[in-house]
Amino acid sequence: MSKMAKRSIKIATIGGGSGYTPELVKGFLDRYDEMPVRELWLVDVPSGEEKLNVIGAMAKRMVKAAGKPMKIVTTMDREAALTDADFVTTQFRVGQLPARVNDENIPIKYGTLGQETNGAGELMMAMRSIPVLLDIVHDMERLCPAAWLINFANPAGMMTEAVLHYTNWKKVIGLCNGPDNIRRDIVQALNVDPVRVYVEFIGLNHLVFAKHIYLDGQDVTAHVIKLVTSKKQRVDNPGVGNWDADFLQSLGVIPISYLQYYWKTKQVVAEEQRAAAREGSRAVVAERLEKQLFDIYRDPTLVTLPEELKKRGGSGYSRASCNLIYSIYADKRDVQVVNVANNGGCLDLAPDSVMEMNCVITGHGPVPLTTGHLPRACVGIVHEMKAFEQVGCKAAVSGDYATALKALTINPVVHSDVDARPLLNELLVANEQYLPQVDFAQLRATGTLK
Amino acid sequence: MSKMAKRSIKIATIGGGSGYTPELVKGFLDRYDEMPVRELWLVDVPSGEEKLNVIGAMAKRMVKAAGKPMKIVTTMDREAALTDADFVTTQFRVGQLPARVNDENIPIKYGTLGQETNGAGELMMAMRSIPVLLDIVHDMERLCPAAWLINFANPAGMMTEAVLHYTNWKKVIGLCNGPDNIRRDIVQALNVDPVRVYVEFIGLNHLVFAKHIYLDGQDVTAHVIKLVTSKKQRVDNPGVGNWDADFLQSLGVIPISYLQYYWKTKQVVAEEQRAAAREGSRAVVAERLEKQLFDIYRDPTLVTLPEELKKRGGSGYSRASCNLIYSIYADKRDVQVVNVANNGGCLDLAPDSVMEMNCVITGHGPVPLTTGHLPRACVGIVHEMKAFEQVGCKAAVSGDYATALKALTINPVVHSDVDARPLLNELLVANEQYLPQVDFAQLRATGTLK
Amino acid sequence: MSKMAKRSIKIATIGGGSGYTPELVKGFLDRYDEMPVRELWLVDVPSGEEKLNVIGAMAKRMVKAAGKPMKIVTTMDREAALTDADFVTTQFRVGQLPARVNDENIPIKYGTLGQETNGAGELMMAMRSIPVLLDIVHDMERLCPAAWLINFANPAGMMTEAVLHYTNWKKVIGLCNGPDNIRRDIVQALNVDPVRVYVEFIGLNHLVFAKHIYLDGQDVTAHVIKLVTSKKQRVDNPGVGNWDADFLQSLGVIPISYLQYYWKTKQVVAEEQRAAAREGSRAVVAERLEKQLFDIYRDPTLVTLPEELKKRGGSGYSRASCNLIYSIYADKRDVQVVNVANNGGCLDLAPDSVMEMNCVITGHGPVPLTTGHLPRACVGIVHEMKAFEQVGCKAAVSGDYATALKALTINPVVHSDVDARPLLNELLVANEQYLPQVDFAQLRATGTLK
Amino acid sequence: MSKMAKRSIKIATIGGGSGYTPELVKGFLDRYDEMPVRELWLVDVPSGEEKLNVIGAMAKRMVKAAGKPMKIVTTMDREAALTDADFVTTQFRVGQLPARVNDENIPIKYGTLGQETNGAGELMMAMRSIPVLLDIVHDMERLCPAAWLINFANPAGMMTEAVLHYTNWKKVIGLCNGPDNIRRDIVQALNVDPVRVYVEFIGLNHLVFAKHIYLDGQDVTAHVIKLVTSKKQRVDNPGVGNWDADFLQSLGVIPISYLQYYWKTKQVVAEEQRAAAREGSRAVVAERLEKQLFDIYRDPTLVTLPEELKKRGGSGYSRASCNLIYSIYADKRDVQVVNVANNGGCLDLAPDSVMEMNCVITGHGPVPLTTGHLPRACVGIVHEMKAFEQVGCKAAVSGDYATALKALTINPVVHSDVDARPLLNELLVANEQYLPQVDFAQLRATGTLK
Repeated sequence: MSKMAKRSIKIATIGGGSGYTPELVKGFLDRYDEMPVRELWLVDVPSGEEKLNVIGAMAKRMVKAAGKPMKIVTTMDREAALTDADFVTTQFRVGQLPARVNDENIPIKYGTLGQETNGAGELMMAMRSIPVLLDIVHDMERLCPAAWLINFANPAGMMTEAVLHYTNWKKVIGLCNGPDNIRRDIVQALNVDPVRVYVEFIGLNHLVFAKHIYLDGQDVTAHVIKLVTSKKQRVDNPGVGNWDADFLQSLGVIPISYLQYYWKTKQVVAEEQRAAAREGSRAVVAERLEKQLFDIYRDPTLVTLPEELKKRGGSGYSRASCNLIYSIYADKRDVQVVNVANNGGCLDLAPDSVMEMNCVITGHGPVPLTTGHLPRACVGIVHEMKAFEQVGCKAAVSGDYATALKALTINPVVHSDVDARPLLNELLVANEQYLPQVDFAQLRATGTLK
Repeated sequence: MSKMAKRSIKIATIGGGSGYTPELVKGFLDRYDEMPVRELWLVDVPSGEEKLNVIGAMAKRMVKAAGKPMKIVTTMDREAALTDADFVTTQFRVGQLPARVNDENIPIKYGTLGQETNGAGELMMAMRSIPVLLDIVHDMERLCPAAWLINFANPAGMMTEAVLHYTNWKKVIGLCNGPDNIRRDIVQALNVDPVRVYVEFIGLNHLVFAKHIYLDGQDVTAHVIKLVTSKKQRVDNPGVGNWDADFLQSLGVIPISYLQYYWKTKQVVAEEQRAAAREGSRAVVAERLEKQLFDIYRDPTLVTLPEELKKRGGSGYSRASCNLIYSIYADKRDVQVVNVANNGGCLDLAPDSVMEMNCVITGHGPVPLTTGHLPRACVGIVHEMKAFEQVGCKAAVSGDYATALKALTINPVVHSDVDARPLLNELLVANEQYLPQVDFAQLRATGTLK
Repeated sequence: MSKMAKRSIKIATIGGGSGYTPELVKGFLDRYDEMPVRELWLVDVPSGEEKLNVIGAMAKRMVKAAGKPMKIVTTMDREAALTDADFVTTQFRVGQLPARVNDENIPIKYGTLGQETNGAGELMMAMRSIPVLLDIVHDMERLCPAAWLINFANPAGMMTEAVLHYTNWKKVIGLCNGPDNIRRDIVQALNVDPVRVYVEFIGLNHLVFAKHIYLDGQDVTAHVIKLVTSKKQRVDNPGVGNWDADFLQSLGVIPISYLQYYWKTKQVVAEEQRAAAREGSRAVVAERLEKQLFDIYRDPTLVTLPEELKKRGGSGYSRASCNLIYSIYADKRDVQVVNVANNGGCLDLAPDSVMEMNCVITGHGPVPLTTGHLPRACVGIVHEMKAFEQVGCKAAVSGDYATALKALTINPVVHSDVDARPLLNELLVANEQYLPQVDFAQLRATGTLK
Repeated sequence: MSKMAKRSIKIATIGGGSGYTPELVKGFLDRYDEMPVRELWLVDVPSGEEKLNVIGAMAKRMVKAAGKPMKIVTTMDREAALTDADFVTTQFRVGQLPARVNDENIPIKYGTLGQETNGAGELMMAMRSIPVLLDIVHDMERLCPAAWLINFANPAGMMTEAVLHYTNWKKVIGLCNGPDNIRRDIVQALNVDPVRVYVEFIGLNHLVFAKHIYLDGQDVTAHVIKLVTSKKQRVDNPGVGNWDADFLQSLGVIPISYLQYYWKTKQVVAEEQRAAAREGSRAVVAERLEKQLFDIYRDPTLVTLPEELKKRGGSGYSRASCNLIYSIYADKRDVQVVNVANNGGCLDLAPDSVMEMNCVITGHGPVPLTTGHLPRACVGIVHEMKAFEQVGCKAAVSGDYATALKALTINPVVHSDVDARPLLNELLVANEQYLPQVDFAQLRATGTLK
């Protein structure tokens, strides 16, 4: 297309030591001829240096094997990485897996659940991560003011919401592979060529709905609902999930399986409790898998993606990310599902609320498509979670105790001011090192915390 | 004021055999000189005839003692009662207390709760009552097209919503004494003359918030929150309730104590379970109190309201009702809190959604006052309950099983499609005689119900 | 009512030398026992000192005759006047009548019209007055932060809009006697006791509509339209005006007669041109009337309002103003028509757009009543004028030439970028001394102005 | 793409005798291999039979020359043409050019203007055409319920609005070449490859704005405004038009040149008056050009499009139409500008208002892209014209005199109830044969018409 098409670009990846990074590298290498990534900077924090080195070495081997002039830089110097970047991707996890263990295990003690995008775990992950993301944005304002920020770090919805509400930065996109997984399940149920299927997505991150499904331009939503409720769905990777057939047919849309946290609450809490008792915690399982993966990456002969990578929940993120970056780069104007300010695309939420929705991806960024109203039965939970997200963002930015208490109380898997206080207190103390915005001294002086 | 002021009026009260009726009679007698109620028709169904006779006799004694030419008519002929009525008040309870026992006790078996305006109990009460109310409205279209319909029957919010969405009748007002109770608690906390206090109410029925409180024109909301959270509140009659002080200060508004169903869910479920085990059921307690009250009413010398009446939750309904009828009658243009179509008064809900809100009561009915936005932290639960109400209304009108299942699944005290099905099934079977709109034969033929 | 009721208050009136001030004085004296105005400060600028002295002397004679302990202070020291004021009223006119002569006569040369709330005249009056009003507000923030600002100075709609959009001051109310005049004409057409009539007003200042008219609670709007279109209406004082009977019946609401500027444009322009040729200018007529009035005020024996006062268009402002101040003072909660932020009261305009609308006047200020949608046929002109007002406010605050040119071009009585430029240029030069915010040097340097 | 891609289709073109039809034929032939048009039915009314035959013969020669198996059918039997059609295109003109002469010349007598999409001419064209279009839609409901209706017939905005508001038909798209002309002028001003330019369009038909212009993803709107105001623009074919440079820079968007009717009103009226005096009328010129064109088409050897076709205003319609049909057929998901229900795409107008806007064209039709708010200065005129369109649609459907009078009165180029009445009366009488919905007998009986 345009003369810009061959402009080479610099990409900075914050949290570059993640086990997913090689997938990203592969994506850039596969597209190199259309979009030459001149430099890929992988940034991490000192505590992640060892993993970053493993990933960096793997990336360099991949580049060499591909024979493309892409420069891989591993660094702890975030400013250098951001300087003149065209795209910044964020995939960091403050506190790593040990923090995740707390996010999951502490809520279980209080009869509720925590998970990185649900319940008390989401609030804590947001409180740890949002200040870091806002710091990155403030650096970007100085160092790469024309760049796009593509965030995968969870909770992706709140992270995007925080950037848009608490900074002046507009060029931010939240990305998740959830919609792709739903589409995968729908295509599989229909058993057709994916290109014939158009899915209208709308909702929040990890709370999204396939509102209409079209096959060759015909609305087949009710038919697909029948198909997906007629046999058990895979649940290893979030997709359409398993739902009561009458309920789903009446709902008229397909929720992402994460909706189980709200529409199968008791069952999920019970399962989390069982899992915790059985395996220590899901986070512990994840830790074990990650260790295996890094052992594989350490193999100095490895230049291709290992099979083990696909077992992890985040597989597909990198494909989504490469597609998104390429469409912006090339002004491709195709439809993708991302998290951006709603802007009227959904009539039920405010224009400035971040939603996960179909957008045309242009050279000037994503433009949301209109979807009208959500079904009445979906409006409530979407508003409830958006209210939680917004109050939670405020708690994350301000560090205010009462705001955090309020966020937790109104969260549908907690829904109790009586339960919220001791739960919050234990979580805050467990996360103290990651929450510089919270005035622990004051909270102890007033007796709020011991 | 106008020449209309002395026009005498006819009032028809559906569910006239209620123990609250004498209070209504007293209200009309006290105002007789300003608003002469020429005829008060008390209507009930055959199964309530005995109670209606007791109440009718009591009412006639009260009228005689007051020396006013008000005619009391007790009847089972609803059409005669409605003919040319100026105001129709509805306070019926389909299935009486036995149905209430089911509404409360069956959900407890499934680890959730039922209550006439919350949870599974609300859905069943709506499914029993809404078709009856719509029948009344259709009669009114023929028999008294200029009348106002004032509904106290619970669930009052859904009942009003159903009339506005499923008929062409516009002159309907839902009434509840909840806001008056909150105001009472606020005035008591401030310890001032009530006339100096202005409370801005907004929300749904039994989900309303005192958003701003003014004393002599000064905003004292934060101060009142401090007062009401600093000492334990009465809970015998729903009012401001008891809340975590930090939570409420951060919330910035005072919710009606019914919010405990959503913001103290686990505690309320546990308490309901304990109460059920201890006393059989709350409904049973209510049944005993009602029996005592009717024994008192049977005293042929009684012409004044007994003290026992005040012990019941509904005390104050009649005062609210008389005030409302009088302000319409006299075009008084004072501010009262009623349930009507929002019409822009709250920016967060659709204009056609019924809300409980401050209105100027004019000769042409209530005109909602604007209140702007709800606090972010309240928006979620209000939307969630409004979605439930609207889906529940559809279930009540259509009798559709899947719609009822959907309503129950999205209700925040159920929140599980897995739990919703057996719970709904048991409730439907228990209410079969009151649900002519549900096709039980079909549900059994398809195996949905046994 | 409350114990506050006897609190005495201080009022500051900016533009106190106006010929209307004695009416205001009478209003305060008549209500003295309910609302003791301890001090009334009349403020003016040096060029108005002579008139201020005449008015001050008249006011003092009135106070003395009434025997009330109200202190009248005339001053050029605005800061002293504002200090600790409870209410500030603004009725100033920058440039006095000579500026008005330009506002009216220059547009006529370009085949359009100017009037203080319409067309090019409105823009110039706004550009002269808004900066002064914002200065007053900034003084109030320091000197009387709890006071209410009640503005009658034209263009009253734009003035209120400017305060709400360009300062943080919220306690501002725009006031006009237009709605009262419409109500007067309606009551006269119905020939009934005014208390029986309720009129729902909604629109912009000088662009307001009587949307519904109720007599004893019955909608009589269509009947009143028939009455007012069946005989010629007075036009000396803006009211219901004269309209094509079919047009008005189809419109379904009664516009204020000022709508003639938009819905009889050609006729009004022609009439303005004739008047200008015949009498020099309407402003000249006004100047002559004002001179006569001040001659009367100079009579040292005069202690009552002269008949000549009623001949002027603004009669009734003072009554409206006293009613408004008293209702806030006494937390009266009656319905009055004022200019405030819409807040959802009209569904067609943004919540933060200032509208003229029915409000309940409480101790914490006006609360708009909801009115739903305007008739489709009225929505267009209301939006067009609101767009003009908002662009015009921006021009007034910034002094930006292109913004002023844009405001004039989109104004429906100009509607031409070709006409707008020479018209704006002549108006700017004529108003140069009153427009410190405009950079005339720069405009001349770039050749925009000669 | 999909297996559907080779499905052959039937197209019915109402008003097939139009001189533009050969361009449409060429478009279908050029794309035949990707989208085989099996049958193209050209429908017209008896008074257009002769022209239809000329066009039909030309079309058949073109098909033969191209060697594609496309069947051309000319017919007066609309039902046969519609039966099982996949796409129906409408390009008819009720009353042909003689009616247009009246639309243009009568308003000039009253000092205003008429044109097929502006002023009194638009109202009359709508009143003649909308009932015919609704008839077609009602036929389609029976004969081709799965078809898409693509309307080019003017006034295209009102026609689409009428279908969506007065029928249950949803699959309608209004099409105009205006946005393409603006894009052409922008590309020419930038002097770049068109594929590098993205223009965000939003507004109404013939009242649309290029809100943002991007070159390779960079916002160049201000730069393009500078370019297009720095030299005189072509006005033979509506595009960016000529505007005051300061005005346009401040406006910040580029209006279609048709905005001159509202933002250069006096100049356009004067020009129309001059043109009418000079050439009889623009319609007469058009008539002469059409005659020349048909003489050319009569040449039995002609198989290619004549140069003369490009001189007419509508050139490009057919390209736009073919592109649109193909994108639906092939589920292409590219961005085109069409007239559909806004659905939240523009935050200033109601979701159900038809707007001209960027849409993704999918196999299930156009999906509007979000654009946020219009500039304040544009909101007014857009609302004013939308109000006119909606009131005008009601007049067209009902035939009600007072509604038509109201539409004309609120139209910004009339803006006078005094002028509207005689103008409407003369127009109605002149169009009597085309207005079966108007009760002329009644209007004469009551003396409204003579």
